[in-house]
Amino acid sequence: METRLTATVVGATGYTGAEVCRLLSNHPFVELTVATSERQAGTPLFAACPWLTSEVVLSRFDPELLTADVVFLCQANGMAMKVAPALSKRMKVVDLSADFRLKDTTLYPEWYGFEHTSPGLSPWPAYGLPELVDRGSITAAQIVANPGCYVTASLLALVPLMKGGLVSGVPVIDAKSGVSGAGRSRSETEYLLGELHGSFKAYKTTGHRHIPEIEQLFGGPVRFTPHLLPVSRGICATIHVASSASKGAVYDCWTRFYADEPFVRTQGAPPSTKQVHGSNTCALYADFDERTGHAVLVSVIDNLVKGAAGQAVQNMNLMLGLPEVAGLPTDGVWP
Amino acid sequence: METRLTATVVGATGYTGAEVCRLLSNHPFVELTVATSERQAGTPLFAACPWLTSEVVLSRFDPELLTADVVFLCQANGMAMKVAPALSKRMKVVDLSADFRLKDTTLYPEWYGFEHTSPGLSPWPAYGLPELVDRGSITAAQIVANPGCYVTASLLALVPLMKGGLVSGVPVIDAKSGVSGAGRSRSETEYLLGELHGSFKAYKTTGHRHIPEIEQLFGGPVRFTPHLLPVSRGICATIHVASSASKGAVYDCWTRFYADEPFVRTQGAPPSTKQVHGSNTCALYADFDERTGHAVLVSVIDNLVKGAAGQAVQNMNLMLGLPEVAGLPTDGVWP
Amino acid sequence: METRLTATVVGATGYTGAEVCRLLSNHPFVELTVATSERQAGTPLFAACPWLTSEVVLSRFDPELLTADVVFLCQANGMAMKVAPALSKRMKVVDLSADFRLKDTTLYPEWYGFEHTSPGLSPWPAYGLPELVDRGSITAAQIVANPGCYVTASLLALVPLMKGGLVSGVPVIDAKSGVSGAGRSRSETEYLLGELHGSFKAYKTTGHRHIPEIEQLFGGPVRFTPHLLPVSRGICATIHVASSASKGAVYDCWTRFYADEPFVRTQGAPPSTKQVHGSNTCALYADFDERTGHAVLVSVIDNLVKGAAGQAVQNMNLMLGLPEVAGLPTDGVWP
Amino acid sequence: METRLTATVVGATGYTGAEVCRLLSNHPFVELTVATSERQAGTPLFAACPWLTSEVVLSRFDPELLTADVVFLCQANGMAMKVAPALSKRMKVVDLSADFRLKDTTLYPEWYGFEHTSPGLSPWPAYGLPELVDRGSITAAQIVANPGCYVTASLLALVPLMKGGLVSGVPVIDAKSGVSGAGRSRSETEYLLGELHGSFKAYKTTGHRHIPEIEQLFGGPVRFTPHLLPVSRGICATIHVASSASKGAVYDCWTRFYADEPFVRTQGAPPSTKQVHGSNTCALYADFDERTGHAVLVSVIDNLVKGAAGQAVQNMNLMLGLPEVAGLPTDGVWP
Repeated sequence: METRLTATVVGATGYTGAEVCRLLSNHPFVELTVATSERQAGTPLFAACPWLTSEVVLSRFDPELLTADVVFLCQANGMAMKVAPALSKRMKVVDLSADFRLKDTTLYPEWYGFEHTSPGLSPWPAYGLPELVDRGSITAAQIVANPGCYVTASLLALVPLMKGGLVSGVPVIDAKSGVSGAGRSRSETEYLLGELHGSFKAYKTTGHRHIPEIEQLFGGPVRFTPHLLPVSRGICATIHVASSASKGAVYDCWTRFYADEPFVRTQGAPPSTKQVHGSNTCALYADFDERTGHAVLVSVIDNLVKGAAGQAVQNMNLMLGLPEVAGLPTDGVWP
Repeated sequence: METRLTATVVGATGYTGAEVCRLLSNHPFVELTVATSERQAGTPLFAACPWLTSEVVLSRFDPELLTADVVFLCQANGMAMKVAPALSKRMKVVDLSADFRLKDTTLYPEWYGFEHTSPGLSPWPAYGLPELVDRGSITAAQIVANPGCYVTASLLALVPLMKGGLVSGVPVIDAKSGVSGAGRSRSETEYLLGELHGSFKAYKTTGHRHIPEIEQLFGGPVRFTPHLLPVSRGICATIHVASSASKGAVYDCWTRFYADEPFVRTQGAPPSTKQVHGSNTCALYADFDERTGHAVLVSVIDNLVKGAAGQAVQNMNLMLGLPEVAGLPTDGVWP
Repeated sequence: METRLTATVVGATGYTGAEVCRLLSNHPFVELTVATSERQAGTPLFAACPWLTSEVVLSRFDPELLTADVVFLCQANGMAMKVAPALSKRMKVVDLSADFRLKDTTLYPEWYGFEHTSPGLSPWPAYGLPELVDRGSITAAQIVANPGCYVTASLLALVPLMKGGLVSGVPVIDAKSGVSGAGRSRSETEYLLGELHGSFKAYKTTGHRHIPEIEQLFGGPVRFTPHLLPVSRGICATIHVASSASKGAVYDCWTRFYADEPFVRTQGAPPSTKQVHGSNTCALYADFDERTGHAVLVSVIDNLVKGAAGQAVQNMNLMLGLPEVAGLPTDGVWP
Repeated sequence: METRLTATVVGATGYTGAEVCRLLSNHPFVELTVATSERQAGTPLFAACPWLTSEVVLSRFDPELLTADVVFLCQANGMAMKVAPALSKRMKVVDLSADFRLKDTTLYPEWYGFEHTSPGLSPWPAYGLPELVDRGSITAAQIVANPGCYVTASLLALVPLMKGGLVSGVPVIDAKSGVSGAGRSRSETEYLLGELHGSFKAYKTTGHRHIPEIEQLFGGPVRFTPHLLPVSRGICATIHVASSASKGAVYDCWTRFYADEPFVRTQGAPPSTKQVHGSNTCALYADFDERTGHAVLVSVIDNLVKGAAGQAVQNMNLMLGLPEVAGLPTDGVWP
């Protein structure tokens, strides 16, 4: 391909922003040309983030000056809703924050603590979970809302079964995530390695922000509790749900639903989070507990790839008319 | 105290046996005088297990020659049921295997894969979960069956609420354990640090052996799935159970039930497994999900202490008429 | 013992302060009666530090009001030199900071960045490395300067050989420490678990503050570089030093030197840091590289126990006339 | 490129073999068409190694039937020297074992415990450390001996300084490696996560097999001790060497030497092993200790990439006339 497309990453030194930069460094058609950071403007990306080798010099974010084929918004919640509408008139926008994930914008005050400033945006951004929504809505969109990490892991397991009529009752989603899900700028003592090493705990046992986003696509209430794993990356969602389906019926449903999907795999043994480390793959496993009538579903992703930056690049590929798999690894870094 | 009592540990180089040795090294009234190992007989304990400093020389286990005030049986399942009845005529026996945990011995073939060889033993050994059973049954017993680790964590959270009528439906117990629960002699590739470091996975998603033991005391069916944490020690059981109780009602129930217990504590934030590292404490936390009508219970223990060797020493203290807390740390090794 | 002695811990919620509290919770003769924290005054210790079970309520540090048999000063460097002289008139003082470690107080500006405010204190506090100094200096002292963690690990290996004339040239000390050595209040991104998990790096490759303290007792210059291990606790010092001694000669020297020491052990295989986790033991190992004429010494300690709080309690025991080993575990928490 | 070249990986389910497969899955010009495993023949690669997605079915290794453009030999030491000479008549051979690393084959009995069976092979295979040898020797070779992991990390730091006359005396190389360096088939208890988690230790304190390989290119004796890090991947070599060079002189030397190298970088702060996780990059840092007259060099690589599979693919690229960087990531997977 002779001409390469250009990408901007806003908030490039956070975990999700830097991960978009890493993935673009191997992308055959798209090049990172602008990376922004308010704190480290003027520093080359390789110096601010020594695991990256890009020589792009970090700059401050100025929405008015920005030119690119696609921009990834990787800032804290509440920023994208202010700048995405204007930016989308000049380029494709992939928003990795939560700002456009909930179509019912009246939910933002309760779950996120702020009023949405663009509640009437039309068309409303597409929801970028390609395996579960109409892909046409993503290819046609100027703005795509990139899903939450817990949401992606949970829905990829649940939605095919829900559509197949195989679940009943309220699913219990017991989810576990590596600490990178909390972001890179946490200054609380509790995120120190000394505190978390060799340890494990539940947090936000009720009321986590990803609940309404899961329910939006699932179509009903879910019981959800997340936990913090003493690892950098990886999500495992274990879902216990009343069901009358056999184990074989669950696999049949998944296999049909994901027959042509390059990034979703089923397997016969419970997946480990590390098997998808650094990759855009979601691995699924199911069992059936006849004693209590529950299906047990296990879904693992890399929270920063399929749960964030990888899915964002997947959405970008669709929006720009590129092969959906371009630049996205499917093999995990193991051990 | 002028005369010290003597203890034997059978299987002293495994994780639970060595942990009994460690705890006895700080015990004010009981001294380790014999430690057995089939493979390392002739080696001083400090050489076989360099974290221990005992100079006791390991010997082979010969039930007929053994003399001690108390013996801890820390072998694989299936051994204790052969030797405990005879030993119990000469000394107190604490069995850390599963051999006497299930009163209904017809369950052993299905869950453990062997027939019980002493199904009619009378009196049947006491079940050594002091906070949940009649302590008199332990003090009077010649043999105590030390409970399973997942069982201890789960039941300490559930039983008070069950007795208080605060739970309904089938509890979903989503449990996570450090790898020491799998023992020290695993030669499978999957237990290598290279495979597990930075990773997390479910295992035995249905049908784990601790299920009938949980149900025996809980009194009804439970949904149970365990997971492997990439840490040495620690169990966290997260229990989702339909309930009409408020958060306050759960805490009131626990607080009353455990008012005088030195080893069970409730707290206002989710406990981390590391806070009980090396200690005999169980820490409990509760939340209530009004959206779905579930109580969320979190229980953490050190699987090798309150989940094995510490509870065994606690049972020994009761059996020998010593203070229940003797030699048992309540503070965790943090960070 | 009928009357228990009383101890105060100043700075009880930091890693070293809390570790003193943990050790005192098992101490047969000394009781923690006052614990201070400027930030969390008014909170019970068990609530501020959930791994502790003490019900002592944290208070602000007021040197004038303090009464106790012994006080542990566990604050940042620069505080103890202001309060220790006055406190020492009323009680025994163990200072865990660096304030009294260097007898040549003119070194403080260069290595610590501040002028010493009590340069002429007389008698100068004893240096509390019991195995290497005259124990009488500790038992007689009102103030003891508790040594640095890297210093303890390095000198316990080196000093006997130096005194035995077995080393020549400049020792190369390549040291590795768990993150708790950096303290609990680090808010830099680099101490987050996300940054350090699964990683390892050198830091302060030249000019670390423990160098003059090592040289003070060793009596000559040393080459020293520390590294950060992705673990909570533990120090391993690997020392490469030109020598004409055989491996056997090194062990003979150590064995004679430490014959009666309860906390120093030699062993025939390289020790792992975890074998001393939570214990006051130092484990030593030696090899000899005939190809290059170097002795290779390996020394491991728990940086928070023998490297800080445990050695502080050991010093306290000596200062109060108690058995030196009282309340100090020698067995490590493994696995 | 219309025609893709074909590659075979012999020993595909070990850590280095599987890593070659992972790298080839992203290679633009070379395709994995045959993967062998004696134990798992008949199983698809994705099932034997769930982190890989290749559908190639594992087969037994039959040197006579093999056809490919390039073969990677990833077996235990002692196998390649038997099959490589014949294979090299039909295809390019990259040997990841130690069989052809030492030109002086009389060293094999002492360091590896076996006699070399092809001591007179002519031409002797090229040594595949592209940055330090004549690249023409690699491009012309039919067999390339892929260097050891510790060797690569150590020599990339040392050789430029040695050639520049900046080092004197015997370098002390204190090296630390993640456990994947020990391979995937270790069944010893000591490699269990339970034993190694949260721990660190030296091993093979003298006499490690990589010493003669380091000395072969360095040209003089080195003092070398390796350590085991409680992580999956990553090597950090800290080198203390007497020198009269300033810090600036070291950087100048490196910068000139590596000016056009895509896989070697210098940086102003000590690198962490994780910054090169999954990448083919070597990161270098230097400091100078004026007090003792030593340069301190720090070199980090991913032991499975630049230390094994990545360097093997780099050699393959050179041997097949492809761009040296094809298919090789330079950015690390962080956090």
